[in-house]
Amino acid sequence: MYPQPKLLSAEPKLAEWTTHVKRSVLRDMIAVVSKPGILSFAGGLPAPDLFPCDSFSDAVAHVMSSDALALQYRPPYEPLKAQIVELMRMRGVECSTRQIFITTGAQQALAVLAQMLLDPHGTVAAERIVYTGLQQAVAPMSPRFLSIETDLQSGMDVDQLRRALAGGERPAFLYTVPEAHNPLGVSLSPAKRHQLIAVAREYGLPIIEDDPYGLLSYDGAAPDALRSLDETFVFYLGSFSKIIAPALRVGWIVAPEAMVPKLTVVKEAADLETSALMQRAISAWLAAGHLAPHLALLRREYGARRDAMLAALRRHFPANATWTEPEAGMFVWVELPQAFDTGALFERALAEEQVAFIPGHAFAVGGQGARNCLRLNFSNATVDQINHGIERLGRVIG
Amino acid sequence: MYPQPKLLSAEPKLAEWTTHVKRSVLRDMIAVVSKPGILSFAGGLPAPDLFPCDSFSDAVAHVMSSDALALQYRPPYEPLKAQIVELMRMRGVECSTRQIFITTGAQQALAVLAQMLLDPHGTVAAERIVYTGLQQAVAPMSPRFLSIETDLQSGMDVDQLRRALAGGERPAFLYTVPEAHNPLGVSLSPAKRHQLIAVAREYGLPIIEDDPYGLLSYDGAAPDALRSLDETFVFYLGSFSKIIAPALRVGWIVAPEAMVPKLTVVKEAADLETSALMQRAISAWLAAGHLAPHLALLRREYGARRDAMLAALRRHFPANATWTEPEAGMFVWVELPQAFDTGALFERALAEEQVAFIPGHAFAVGGQGARNCLRLNFSNATVDQINHGIERLGRVIG
Repeated sequence: MYPQPKLLSAEPKLAEWTTHVKRSVLRDMIAVVSKPGILSFAGGLPAPDLFPCDSFSDAVAHVMSSDALALQYRPPYEPLKAQIVELMRMRGVECSTRQIFITTGAQQALAVLAQMLLDPHGTVAAERIVYTGLQQAVAPMSPRFLSIETDLQSGMDVDQLRRALAGGERPAFLYTVPEAHNPLGVSLSPAKRHQLIAVAREYGLPIIEDDPYGLLSYDGAAPDALRSLDETFVFYLGSFSKIIAPALRVGWIVAPEAMVPKLTVVKEAADLETSALMQRAISAWLAAGHLAPHLALLRREYGARRDAMLAALRRHFPANATWTEPEAGMFVWVELPQAFDTGALFERALAEEQVAFIPGHAFAVGGQGARNCLRLNFSNATVDQINHGIERLGRVIG
Repeated sequence: MYPQPKLLSAEPKLAEWTTHVKRSVLRDMIAVVSKPGILSFAGGLPAPDLFPCDSFSDAVAHVMSSDALALQYRPPYEPLKAQIVELMRMRGVECSTRQIFITTGAQQALAVLAQMLLDPHGTVAAERIVYTGLQQAVAPMSPRFLSIETDLQSGMDVDQLRRALAGGERPAFLYTVPEAHNPLGVSLSPAKRHQLIAVAREYGLPIIEDDPYGLLSYDGAAPDALRSLDETFVFYLGSFSKIIAPALRVGWIVAPEAMVPKLTVVKEAADLETSALMQRAISAWLAAGHLAPHLALLRREYGARRDAMLAALRRHFPANATWTEPEAGMFVWVELPQAFDTGALFERALAEEQVAFIPGHAFAVGGQGARNCLRLNFSNATVDQINHGIERLGRVIG
């Protein structure tokens, strides 16, 4: 009935942008160092021994036995939104449930906002050393990056951003992690937070404020989130991944209220909706009063691990190395003298001392730069492991 | 220090494609008809009274008490992939775990494939009456649609597709629901399945085979999935939403193996990963042998509801109305004589008889066409509700 098919193509043709898609360097490295016997400061993982397994398991069981529709397709869970409004007060933010938009983790929030704000081949403003998930989220739009430098004491160079905007740059948005930057570990100074909001308002620049670590602060409360200063241009991203557990896959946006109807449609296209079961389980867990003592536990434990790492760095790293002293989050950023190549050091540290970290270039836009830098994670290692691991790493650096 | 900001823009500027984003007609209608007292055949919901709440709750509790890392960031769960390989045999498909790609529901699979296969302003081939989630998933790429007609007895007009391709059309992919089409309820005939695969191979046309209902067949096993006939061009989408429950938010792609590395990167950008907890809970539930008896229950119950709806349509709908007789899935598609406007009928049915359905135009590409048609859901109503509801709807039609 039909002629013999002539195969025009041996496999499906892909969209143009995917020709630039590379495997995630970070994921590959983390896979390499996840083998038994490796002491790894590479990942960005919360400590699983601190997960509230029992109380969260109780919350899931309670929801499944009491709400027959918890497994159904459901609209976003309003009681959880109200609880997030309460939680945002801890970040200095006053908002309403109409501004809370629930997502399947903060990465989805980022991907959905990138789709909503960025035209193909548009411009994204971001720090030159940046969370790799930002680069992945915007890749389908093949953007150009407007790269901003970061001061390791006070955070992003807001003046550089202002000069670029004054010079005619019109990025679709600025992405930033003001509190305990990943990978740099620095927090944006309160003065610069005010300056940044003034710049955003002057130029109508949307800011995506990614704040996974704002509640994990170790020297008292972190400075108020950028969102506390502006509700028109700031899209605040929050997540339960680091304060409860990643496998819940629930995050949120505190969005400008006018944006919520479009966000709803864009998010629905991405995955219909975020698990009704997980939204209800988190709500039940919060309602049972578990958050405050759990945050206290995390701050105490992670704070001790940070202190141990900073002390070990002082003991074991050369005098001409410098590092950030994070007030929150999970990461310390180390700068070695310019002659060092941390890509080569990564291989030697693995081979000679079975210790792992992430070389700085993995976080550089375009993969260039920061060749003398490295990121160390302190949340997922015990104080003992930190002491021994940093000593071993110090030996490799020499 | 800074001059008074001059506000250039009162709110964030959005990407161009979002100016065409409309609220989902379907979601709005479903919200309207979700009020108490409305007998609704509008939604596309599985029956919550049939969810395996107890056994799934046990599976979650088992995982949380036995696997401390179930709440952590984790790679895709290999045992679940192996179980999906087994499950695919029920759809006539032989595949390997290296071809199984786990997603956050089948909608995410669709969104990720749209990003991976479709360039901005590219062409999408799809039936003219189509699942609304397809239109949403491709919207960010502002595509043009190549619309294919559907025969209500045998499914898509494969000859029309072939002629379009022979005439020079080069769509990025074809989207189709071969088994129990949503909204049409028709299944693609076995002969046309072979013809469609021949066309795909001849022109190198990727096919996205969306198969949420393939295991919900009521007259014996459904015909083998398209993926059983080709593993190079067919991306098969499966989902646990209709065979276990939607709130798990777990689906999968059986992908051409060469595509998996890029899919990994694109999916990671979308939401990092699918819940490690849910993957393990589903795996535990499957391992406990719950699927076979649960599928038998769903087939018996939904089959009875389908039979009741078809019988009620024969009793209460006018002789010049026609409808599909689905062998699987959740929907019957009704064509009334051309003079009918089911948009107006929707309002009258709600007001006069408190019965709801979805007017056909909600599924038409561009919102045009099918004005004399309507979609009826039979999975989420009891036999009694179906009998009374179709009688009441018949009265409105007159």
